[in-house]
Amino acid sequence: MYMNRTEPKIMPGFMELLPADQILFNKMYDTIRRVYERFGFSPLDTPILEYSEILLAKAGGETEKQIYRFNKGDTDISMRFDLTVPLARYVAEHYPEIAFPFKRYQMGKVYRGERPQKGRFREFYQCDIDVIGNEQLDLLNDAEIPVIIYSVFKEMGFNEFKIRLNNRKILNGLFASLNLTDVAPDILRLIDKIDKIGRDDVSIELRKIGVSDADIALIINFILIKGSIDEVISKIKDLNISNDLYNIGIEELGTVAKTAISFGLPVDNLDIDLTIARGLDYYTGTIYETTLNDYPNIGSICSGGRYDNLAEYYTDRKLPGVGISIGLTRLFYQLREANIIKASNSSPAKVLVIPMSQSKDYALEIAGKLRDTDIATDVYLQNKNIKNKIQYADRLGIPFVIFIGEDEEREQKVTIRNLSISEQKVLSLDETIEEIKRAIK
Amino acid sequence: MYMNRTEPKIMPGFMELLPADQILFNKMYDTIRRVYERFGFSPLDTPILEYSEILLAKAGGETEKQIYRFNKGDTDISMRFDLTVPLARYVAEHYPEIAFPFKRYQMGKVYRGERPQKGRFREFYQCDIDVIGNEQLDLLNDAEIPVIIYSVFKEMGFNEFKIRLNNRKILNGLFASLNLTDVAPDILRLIDKIDKIGRDDVSIELRKIGVSDADIALIINFILIKGSIDEVISKIKDLNISNDLYNIGIEELGTVAKTAISFGLPVDNLDIDLTIARGLDYYTGTIYETTLNDYPNIGSICSGGRYDNLAEYYTDRKLPGVGISIGLTRLFYQLREANIIKASNSSPAKVLVIPMSQSKDYALEIAGKLRDTDIATDVYLQNKNIKNKIQYADRLGIPFVIFIGEDEEREQKVTIRNLSISEQKVLSLDETIEEIKRAIK
Repeated sequence: MYMNRTEPKIMPGFMELLPADQILFNKMYDTIRRVYERFGFSPLDTPILEYSEILLAKAGGETEKQIYRFNKGDTDISMRFDLTVPLARYVAEHYPEIAFPFKRYQMGKVYRGERPQKGRFREFYQCDIDVIGNEQLDLLNDAEIPVIIYSVFKEMGFNEFKIRLNNRKILNGLFASLNLTDVAPDILRLIDKIDKIGRDDVSIELRKIGVSDADIALIINFILIKGSIDEVISKIKDLNISNDLYNIGIEELGTVAKTAISFGLPVDNLDIDLTIARGLDYYTGTIYETTLNDYPNIGSICSGGRYDNLAEYYTDRKLPGVGISIGLTRLFYQLREANIIKASNSSPAKVLVIPMSQSKDYALEIAGKLRDTDIATDVYLQNKNIKNKIQYADRLGIPFVIFIGEDEEREQKVTIRNLSISEQKVLSLDETIEEIKRAIK
Repeated sequence: MYMNRTEPKIMPGFMELLPADQILFNKMYDTIRRVYERFGFSPLDTPILEYSEILLAKAGGETEKQIYRFNKGDTDISMRFDLTVPLARYVAEHYPEIAFPFKRYQMGKVYRGERPQKGRFREFYQCDIDVIGNEQLDLLNDAEIPVIIYSVFKEMGFNEFKIRLNNRKILNGLFASLNLTDVAPDILRLIDKIDKIGRDDVSIELRKIGVSDADIALIINFILIKGSIDEVISKIKDLNISNDLYNIGIEELGTVAKTAISFGLPVDNLDIDLTIARGLDYYTGTIYETTLNDYPNIGSICSGGRYDNLAEYYTDRKLPGVGISIGLTRLFYQLREANIIKASNSSPAKVLVIPMSQSKDYALEIAGKLRDTDIATDVYLQNKNIKNKIQYADRLGIPFVIFIGEDEEREQKVTIRNLSISEQKVLSLDETIEEIKRAIK
């Protein structure tokens, strides 16, 4: 039969992995989820499709252009582009059924029809937690977030990373005190470039947008402040900016940083960074970014902050919150590109059982018993020669092979081979289970 | 500020759960995944969006009308409506990188823009496994599938269910031998109704489509055959249908059923059901359905079968396979509606730590230590009265509350209350961990 075949391929900007990488990806996903749950966050799973009217109640500009939006029948539908807007809608919709503070995590795919480029994805996982208060949310919640970030990356195997802390009130207050609120977005954009273009060029650019020399000096002095928590707090106090917001921001930043430490965050993993701003209007207090010490180019791997009002587009209740997001697809891609993580096995199986005789019953019985002890077990059921069977285990990176022939059945033993060291032994089932469990731990 | 608010709601046909139900749903999801991995299936995660040309290479009729399809720029895009078509595309695309037999699981959302009605969803989870052979796939793989189905539902807590087994070759061979291949789809549709409309009405309808009285008698006799594996096999042999396909089908069905039993499937959970057909052209051999004994109205909760050629629309390689799918969203919905499953806690936390003194440090230290032993722990950080704090734990269904005040800090103890029995004790941290672990096991 002649068939007109379609070339099998996926669209650019979509990440699809081979099993070995997928196993690695899932391991990271599972680690994040486990830590989120361990800190008492409840799961949520909102639809990927929502009414455009809902998802775009706020959006505008760049975001709106990137959205996958279409009509089906009379319905104007969009694919979610983040997990925060659905959370806002969810909390507003289910308000009476929710116990506050509402601690939820959501880990799922979001969609942005960006121009595809290296390391940018149109479909990617976000892994979010948020704590939502009813009318009010204690600042201590801001201090627990860095402990959670720390636990996630620590448990992923990282040690050398910094959680960068700032407070938007400080920057907002500073600009207000200098009557520079109108040009604040431009100033923030320039501040962001100081590492790239240098202090002098930033000064020139600031002058161009009308900032006075005195203010430029003040701003540059401000953003160059570095040091321990106490040093930074005392230096920004010493600038004597007489603005309430500024001083509240300093108060909050100091409290959050010190409390996070007393909550168990190692001092070495915390950095106060007065330059981070994370977008311009959403965050209203504490801000977080997280960077790997040895890979600054990867940028922030976990970011978030405090906001005053989650759901103002859907309800008149005031719902302040604090949250973070890990862009897992991008993070995975970058860690893999930088060879920081490496896939190994292509199968979750720890052992491949190879039946050597006509009757496969005893082999399957052994497989069943291994599975009962939670050892992931594959059984080779194809009629191939022994070389093929071992190659299959090799190719999938399954560490152990168990041969079950007539001898093994008669003696109620198994022949087990550790493929990585080519060592072969005859063991009882109990010894086998012990051997495998020891090796995979 | 006056704001024009948007009413927060989701589209009909989309399932969104409150945390308690979501926790229950995730438990089922995790069970399925754990069993799939334990049997050595590797994870896959294909994009939700694909080229329409790919997803619709085969589709037609009803399916095509239901698809969410749209253009973005010049690209004709569709949302996946199952996980089988993406698997076919994936295997054809990555053929050289795949070790066969390829055992993969995928659990994710698929989309069908059906008319919303009770129990039907437009966005729903499918949880699939498939074993794909290269050119050839041993029949033993068909025999392992019922063992996997059994393990999944057993581990979910079900005992009373039947895995129904059939083989398409038997029905196809039977109809071919009677020269009824052309009306086979109509006959199958009628067969399906026999429990509802009765034997006599089925006969009348069969006569209407031109089936002779002798053939009607044969068909009805055939589909009423019931009994143990051996009984059914011997009865269908005794019909003396001289058709090769028919006899191969009998051979396969007998082998698969007996081997599944010898692989560990309890006889009580297996049923040969000659009437199940599972669609008309996709499956070519073994067919599976699974029904709960006490809830026949729920229909099949896990179905699948053997197919000769997975990816003929994308490659000329012959890729036979066998697989099953669990429609988790529908299953969850129906189990919950029938009160077979019930949500309890709204938080994964097993304990809520309530700081009773100004300094929260010792409370957070205790929380950290509980989390280190993998006990999910929430800390109440709001400034509320004690009644509110305990109510919060109550409302979320958190079983234990730990109070940490100055006394506890001084004595390095904790006061722990088991909320379900209102029992309160003062314990050391180690005793606390033991107490909680014992209770949640």
